[in-house]
Amino acid sequence: MGEEKIRTSVAEVHRVVAAALGRAGCDGANADSVAAVVAAAERDGCASHGVFRLAGYLAALRSGKVDGAARPSVARIAPGVLRVDARSGFAPLAIGAAREALAPLAREQGLAAAAVVNAHHFSALWADVEPLAEAGLVAIAMTSYMPAVAPAGARVPFFGTNPMAFAWPRAGGTALVVDQASAAMARGEVTLAAREGRSLPPGTGIDAAGQPTTDPAAVLKGALLPFGGHKGSGIALMVELLAGALIGQSFSVEAAERDNKDGGPPSGGVFMLALDPARFGDAEGWLDHGESFLARLAALDGVRLPGDRRAANRRRIAIEGVELPAKLWAEALEAAA
Amino acid sequence: MGEEKIRTSVAEVHRVVAAALGRAGCDGANADSVAAVVAAAERDGCASHGVFRLAGYLAALRSGKVDGAARPSVARIAPGVLRVDARSGFAPLAIGAAREALAPLAREQGLAAAAVVNAHHFSALWADVEPLAEAGLVAIAMTSYMPAVAPAGARVPFFGTNPMAFAWPRAGGTALVVDQASAAMARGEVTLAAREGRSLPPGTGIDAAGQPTTDPAAVLKGALLPFGGHKGSGIALMVELLAGALIGQSFSVEAAERDNKDGGPPSGGVFMLALDPARFGDAEGWLDHGESFLARLAALDGVRLPGDRRAANRRRIAIEGVELPAKLWAEALEAAA
Repeated sequence: MGEEKIRTSVAEVHRVVAAALGRAGCDGANADSVAAVVAAAERDGCASHGVFRLAGYLAALRSGKVDGAARPSVARIAPGVLRVDARSGFAPLAIGAAREALAPLAREQGLAAAAVVNAHHFSALWADVEPLAEAGLVAIAMTSYMPAVAPAGARVPFFGTNPMAFAWPRAGGTALVVDQASAAMARGEVTLAAREGRSLPPGTGIDAAGQPTTDPAAVLKGALLPFGGHKGSGIALMVELLAGALIGQSFSVEAAERDNKDGGPPSGGVFMLALDPARFGDAEGWLDHGESFLARLAALDGVRLPGDRRAANRRRIAIEGVELPAKLWAEALEAAA
Repeated sequence: MGEEKIRTSVAEVHRVVAAALGRAGCDGANADSVAAVVAAAERDGCASHGVFRLAGYLAALRSGKVDGAARPSVARIAPGVLRVDARSGFAPLAIGAAREALAPLAREQGLAAAAVVNAHHFSALWADVEPLAEAGLVAIAMTSYMPAVAPAGARVPFFGTNPMAFAWPRAGGTALVVDQASAAMARGEVTLAAREGRSLPPGTGIDAAGQPTTDPAAVLKGALLPFGGHKGSGIALMVELLAGALIGQSFSVEAAERDNKDGGPPSGGVFMLALDPARFGDAEGWLDHGESFLARLAALDGVRLPGDRRAANRRRIAIEGVELPAKLWAEALEAAA
């Protein structure tokens, strides 16, 4: 609260973050792909996945946990399945490689999945699926993370915040994107609230003794709660199994046990699915049909479509520029110098 | 409350329901497949999808909305996609045909989807996916229904209760099944509460004026709320799009507009997905890996795995038999006579 802010541009965020990553050991392709997701987060007003994450990216490079020069490999391991090995690199380059192979395969097969493995994922999932929907495909992605969420009934963190993103193509080439943690609040938002001295809505989490609290610092020592009780917990469990055992990757609890605790993202998997609506039986009608539905939904009093706030932020920030805590930006500039 | 109950067996439920359906115009295969899902619901203590639904099934046959002699057709419309046309029949026969074709296709392709169309779905989704997981596949199913849920922020019903089921194979051949409405409570449960005079937990729904209420009759005239606020609403939206526009089927609001209001299930689609974990890169390890995770989860204080209550009901009811409201059972017997 009252923290000093500065303004800069999305392009400058991209440039500075890429330079800082380069200085810490990223090659050009990796630095650029990570900087692009950081800049996209700031462009869309998603501070919890923006420059705020740079310190974690840098820590993971400096500790040697992440290979800043990794080149992902892509293999088709079944007619409809790709295995994309990030080879201990940050996720964005591997996710980009996965998308590039997944889109034509989904068009050929009707649907296809990508098992992205050995990736260090620290970004927002909507950025991973949005380009697929803008290419006319329906996309779903899931990933688990470090234990942060108490399963329904439990009082200790066990599930990751386990986001799931769903993207649907819109007429005009934009995408509808639902991207939501299975926690009541994303952990990045809680960390940001702690940093900025804000309290949390009731029901967000419990303290280390398992008691409800609105103090973000206490929740970070305790556990987040799943959204919607046992149903959010069911979604978190599905994410653990699909982004974990299905593709031979760590569950959240295993990721934490294996991680070097440098503050950067652990090694893990991302489950991606793409479906070509032109191959599901209503090639001519599906797009208009979806549009008519979304128009009816948006016309209801009180309703905002998922992603509306992000789109409004994008328009506003394109004009006003990116607002960042002065201290955070100074740290980024120093890392890039 | 205080309603008179009777006890019978699962086999007798199956026989009586099949006979009643037969008298109302179902042929043997359709009567048997519907009776099987009704009996399975009673076997597992899921009263809201049991004999309670018989009146709706019968109404849909008597009004001519549902063809009791329909034979589903199965077509492979893309390498990984099946289109299963229920041809205006009840869903169970078509879902069975979909599973039969989906399982080998998922094994061949790594994953496969089935678009089940022109089906009248009135049963529980867990029954649709459980056999796939018992055959070693990971399965997901979604379907929308009549508008009953107010999207986050809205005060009128627009989404169906829109269940999603996820099934994961367990060692020993059983399945872990997460099956949950994206409503805070399934509509069948609300109807049952109204019938039995029970009040609802706060947060379940709103009345016709858009005000919170715990009266199930008022919620049935108003709207259910999504579970977990805007995140449950996001799941409901995904279900509408995948079981609707993607496969060329009605959204909930459209289904209601087209339905003849006979009290039986409207025509709609079911989206099914099956993934073969043996084709996702960890063919040897995935099952044990999942088991080790589920064992750790189940060992947490206060945690119950999804489906545990259903499994306990199944064991208990196998011994004690099915308990039903006497009036409901008398009506079933009369319809079967």
